[in-house]
Amino acid sequence: MTTPQVEPDITLPPAVRIHEVGPRDGLQNEAVVVPSEVKAEFVTRLAACGLTTIETTSFVNPSWVPQLADAEEVLGLLGEQGRGPSRPVLVPNERGLDRALAAGVGAIAIFGSATETFAQKNLGRSLEESVEMFRPVVARARGAGLRVRAYVSMCFGDPWEGPVPVPQVVSAATRLMDLGCDELSLGDTIGVGTTGHVHRLLAALDAAGLPPDRIGVHFHDTFGQALANTMAALRDGVSVVDASAGGLGGCPYAESATGNLATEDLVWALHGAGVETGVDLAALVETSAWMAGRLGRPSPSRVVQALAAS
Amino acid sequence: MTTPQVEPDITLPPAVRIHEVGPRDGLQNEAVVVPSEVKAEFVTRLAACGLTTIETTSFVNPSWVPQLADAEEVLGLLGEQGRGPSRPVLVPNERGLDRALAAGVGAIAIFGSATETFAQKNLGRSLEESVEMFRPVVARARGAGLRVRAYVSMCFGDPWEGPVPVPQVVSAATRLMDLGCDELSLGDTIGVGTTGHVHRLLAALDAAGLPPDRIGVHFHDTFGQALANTMAALRDGVSVVDASAGGLGGCPYAESATGNLATEDLVWALHGAGVETGVDLAALVETSAWMAGRLGRPSPSRVVQALAAS
Repeated sequence: MTTPQVEPDITLPPAVRIHEVGPRDGLQNEAVVVPSEVKAEFVTRLAACGLTTIETTSFVNPSWVPQLADAEEVLGLLGEQGRGPSRPVLVPNERGLDRALAAGVGAIAIFGSATETFAQKNLGRSLEESVEMFRPVVARARGAGLRVRAYVSMCFGDPWEGPVPVPQVVSAATRLMDLGCDELSLGDTIGVGTTGHVHRLLAALDAAGLPPDRIGVHFHDTFGQALANTMAALRDGVSVVDASAGGLGGCPYAESATGNLATEDLVWALHGAGVETGVDLAALVETSAWMAGRLGRPSPSRVVQALAAS
Repeated sequence: MTTPQVEPDITLPPAVRIHEVGPRDGLQNEAVVVPSEVKAEFVTRLAACGLTTIETTSFVNPSWVPQLADAEEVLGLLGEQGRGPSRPVLVPNERGLDRALAAGVGAIAIFGSATETFAQKNLGRSLEESVEMFRPVVARARGAGLRVRAYVSMCFGDPWEGPVPVPQVVSAATRLMDLGCDELSLGDTIGVGTTGHVHRLLAALDAAGLPPDRIGVHFHDTFGQALANTMAALRDGVSVVDASAGGLGGCPYAESATGNLATEDLVWALHGAGVETGVDLAALVETSAWMAGRLGRPSPSRVVQALAAS
C-alpha cells in the first residue's frame, strides 16, 4: 500500500495547512552543509508537491547558523516563487529584517521563548528584553505589508528549567502576539509534551484571547510523541501544523534524536483520516529521498523509509 | 526531563494494561538469536519494571521461528513466574498446545488473520480452515482452565490484498472469539492504519457484540502511526495495549522498519496524560538499553534513545 485507506475521522478539521519547515528548521540542524542550488531546488520541489507554505531560509547571523549563511543566494535563485506571504523567512532582529527586506520577502517569522533560560541562551537577553527587541521588527515588517509569524520555543518543557508552567507560556505568547503578529507557532522544542498538556495549553491560550485559528503547532519527535500530540491539537480546532519534509532536522542515528515531525508521516495520518492537505504524497516521498541522498543518509521519516523501500 | 510532566487527558481511560510482547513478537522478528538465559532474564526484568502481562514465548514450530525454538528452556528457567494467566504463550495448533500444556502455562494466544491471503501464507490454510484448526485448541485450553487471547492480523491493510474491508475484519474476529476466547487483539501488522479507520473498526466490532473492554490494540510503527492510533483507540474505550519493550521486533536501520509500538514511548504518553500503567519508566529504559546491548544495536524506541543519551 502506497497510500492510506481513507476512513474519515470526524473529530478532525476538514483541511490542514502544513507549514513546511524543512528548508529552514530542518537544514539548519543538519550536519551536512547543502549547496545553495540544492536548497533552492528543494523549495521548488516542495512547492511542486503541493505544499503551500514553505519557510525558505533564515536571516540569523551566519556565525550562529552557518548552514543557512547563504539566505540571499537561495532567494536569488528562487526568484519570485521564493517570495510572497507564504514563503516566510526567519528573522532574529532588525539587522536580519534589513536583509530580509532587501531580499524582497513577503513574510517573516520571529522566534521567542517561553522560558527565561532559553531566551538567555538562544537570544542572549531576558524574555522582557527579547520582546522589546522584536517590537520594532514586527512594526516595521507590518508597515512594509509583511505577514508575521511568532514562534515560541520550549512551550512544554525546557532542558534547563524542566516543566514549563502553562500560564508562563500564555504570558510569553500573548506578549509576542500583542506586537502585531498574525500567527503563533507553539513549539515543543525538546519533544516532551503529551496530549493532556496540549489540550490544557490550547484551552488556556483560547481563554487569553488566542483561539486555535491563530495557532500552529510545532512538535519534535524526541520522545515519539509528535504525531499523537499533533492529532490532539487538531481535535481542539488547530488547523496549521509545522512539519519537516523527510523528518529533516534531527538524525535518528545520533544518540539523541531531536527531529521535527516528518511531513510524510503527518500527511499519511491526515489523508487516511480524510483531511485535505493538497500534498502529493508520492512526489513528497521522492523529494525527501532525493534530499536524503544529498545528505548521505536515510530519511528518518517512517513513511519515506517504508515507501522508498517498496 | 526524564519523566513527562503530568497533565491529565480526560478523554483517556484512567488506567491501561500493557500487554508486553517484546519477548515473543519482539524477539521472533530480530535477526540475532538470544540465549535462553537472556530471554528469561528479560522477562524477569520486565516483570520487575511493573509490567503485569508479558507474552513470554511461542510454541510455533521451531523451523518456522528458530529464534524462539527454546520455549521449554525459557519457561523452565522462569519457573513459576513464567506461568499463570498473565504469562501467555503463542500457540499455533494442537501440537503447540500439547507442548504449552506440558510446560504448565496458564494462558495461550492463538493467531488468526483478517485476510485469506495472509491465512494461506502464515497458516498454510484458508480462513475457514484456520478457524476450524483453532476450535479444538481453544476448547482444550479452556477445559484446562487457561485464559485465551485471539490475535487477528492484517486488520487495517494487507501487503497482498491492499485495504481490508471493515466487515471482513469483524467477521474474522467474531468467528475466532465465538470459539470461546477471552480477549481479541486487533493487529495492524503492516502499520498502515489511521485514526478514522480505528474509530470505524472499533464501532463496527462493538455493534457486532465485541465491545472495547474485550479488545486490545496492536499497532506497528511502519508508517509512524502506532502511537497516534493507540491514543485514538483509548479514546474509544479500549484499555489494553500491546507494546514491545524498546520497540523490539523491527530494526529502524533496516530499509523497511516494521517494529512494534515501543512500550517506553507508550508509557511516556500515558503517564504524561495521567493514565496509570504501573510501569517504572526508568527501570524499563534500563532494561531495554540492556537488551539493545545484547542485540548489538541501539533501541528503536525514541524514549530509550533520548533517555539513554542523557
